[in-house]
Amino acid sequence: MEGGAAATTPAALPYYVAFSQLLGLTLVAMTGAWLGLYRGGIAWESDLQFNAHPLCMVIGLIFLQGNALLVYRVFRNEAKRTTKVLHGLLHIFALVIALVGLVAVFDYHRKKGYADLYSLHSWCGILVFVLYFVQWLVGFSFFLFPGASFSLRSRYRPQHIFFGATIFLLSVGTALLGLKEALLFNLGGKYSAFEPEGVLANVLGLLLVCFGGAVLYILTRADWKRPSQAEEQALSMDFKTLTEGDSPGSQ
Amino acid sequence: MEGGAAATTPAALPYYVAFSQLLGLTLVAMTGAWLGLYRGGIAWESDLQFNAHPLCMVIGLIFLQGNALLVYRVFRNEAKRTTKVLHGLLHIFALVIALVGLVAVFDYHRKKGYADLYSLHSWCGILVFVLYFVQWLVGFSFFLFPGASFSLRSRYRPQHIFFGATIFLLSVGTALLGLKEALLFNLGGKYSAFEPEGVLANVLGLLLVCFGGAVLYILTRADWKRPSQAEEQALSMDFKTLTEGDSPGSQ
Repeated sequence: MEGGAAATTPAALPYYVAFSQLLGLTLVAMTGAWLGLYRGGIAWESDLQFNAHPLCMVIGLIFLQGNALLVYRVFRNEAKRTTKVLHGLLHIFALVIALVGLVAVFDYHRKKGYADLYSLHSWCGILVFVLYFVQWLVGFSFFLFPGASFSLRSRYRPQHIFFGATIFLLSVGTALLGLKEALLFNLGGKYSAFEPEGVLANVLGLLLVCFGGAVLYILTRADWKRPSQAEEQALSMDFKTLTEGDSPGSQ
Repeated sequence: MEGGAAATTPAALPYYVAFSQLLGLTLVAMTGAWLGLYRGGIAWESDLQFNAHPLCMVIGLIFLQGNALLVYRVFRNEAKRTTKVLHGLLHIFALVIALVGLVAVFDYHRKKGYADLYSLHSWCGILVFVLYFVQWLVGFSFFLFPGASFSLRSRYRPQHIFFGATIFLLSVGTALLGLKEALLFNLGGKYSAFEPEGVLANVLGLLLVCFGGAVLYILTRADWKRPSQAEEQALSMDFKTLTEGDSPGSQ
């Protein structure tokens, strides 16, 4: 509505970001509480190794990945380059932590002699992981590596944003499937008797949904998009002049 | 990129829409095949009443709801009023079919003496249903009922679109949870032995994810948004003149 407000922050944005962080931190804390109170806690060298899986995935692929998407909305007045590096770094942390979570579950399955990759949760999880890795590589080559041209970046940007949001949402969906699987394996028939663990885990599931919704809202609200800054506009003009000078008929 | 192409359809759009329909119809057919081949088919007056639940939900809250969202992209050159009515009608069909699916599961639980609303699937399902109903009522009051002013509609439109997409995605997530629940209840330990039913249901889950992704892609692609048409532009100008004439300082 009120276009052209380049260096200001929309009045409501900080409140929405604060609310999303509150949701995200509660989510991480509640995952820890669930594993600590009802699943015996976390350790690498025992049966508790499995519990590293949900905690790492919630921290890496939900909380950190979600926040990596929000970086361009939160640090809207910083230099684009700084924000880009922070975006890339948060995604590296998320990827490494998720990798630890992945090793935990495969290692646990191997020690126990359980089958791998038979469930819908695991299929969705592998899909998320492969897409996330490819998105990171392609994003790095286009946006952080200096070789890509300005027009190539502009054409790839909307795809990068769409796939980024989709991979994040699929991560939330996969976490819900994993939570449900853990509940049905561990509680069985007791789940329908409104056991405290079941209720806590259901609330955890709703928190996952709310965090996903909050990140998506902040990310997609049109008047909260990062304004293009003077430096970028200048750079864009330079490239435009160069490109037009080089090949007038190019698309 | 190429703004101002008012009455044309983007070249790639029909292919993406056709692909989304192929995914959606395969999804409905495969849900039917799963229930027919492995769950004994569908009937209202027996234990098979439960099976009406997944089929109705996939047809109503996934296939029809998804297509209701696509109406503005597919019928981009029709009169806005016609498209609006079609959008509202598809949502009514979706709501009624989902209601039948909801009655089926509650009725089945009652006859069997099973507990209601204890699982994460059911909590998400009720959330989806309440949000969907409220969104329908609010959408009807703002966009189909003649009373709402033009400026009120313009301010509500982005919220309506965001919540519409979110409710659809939450429906997909809830369907995944339900599918997972059915698999773990019915297959138990056999799920990890790669039973044909488990593999089919996993593929069904991935189809749900792909249909959700395809609808989201078509819906969010900026250059595929419906162009504002001559009639609306004229109407918009009329309203603008009226509003400005009435209250020059109004926001």
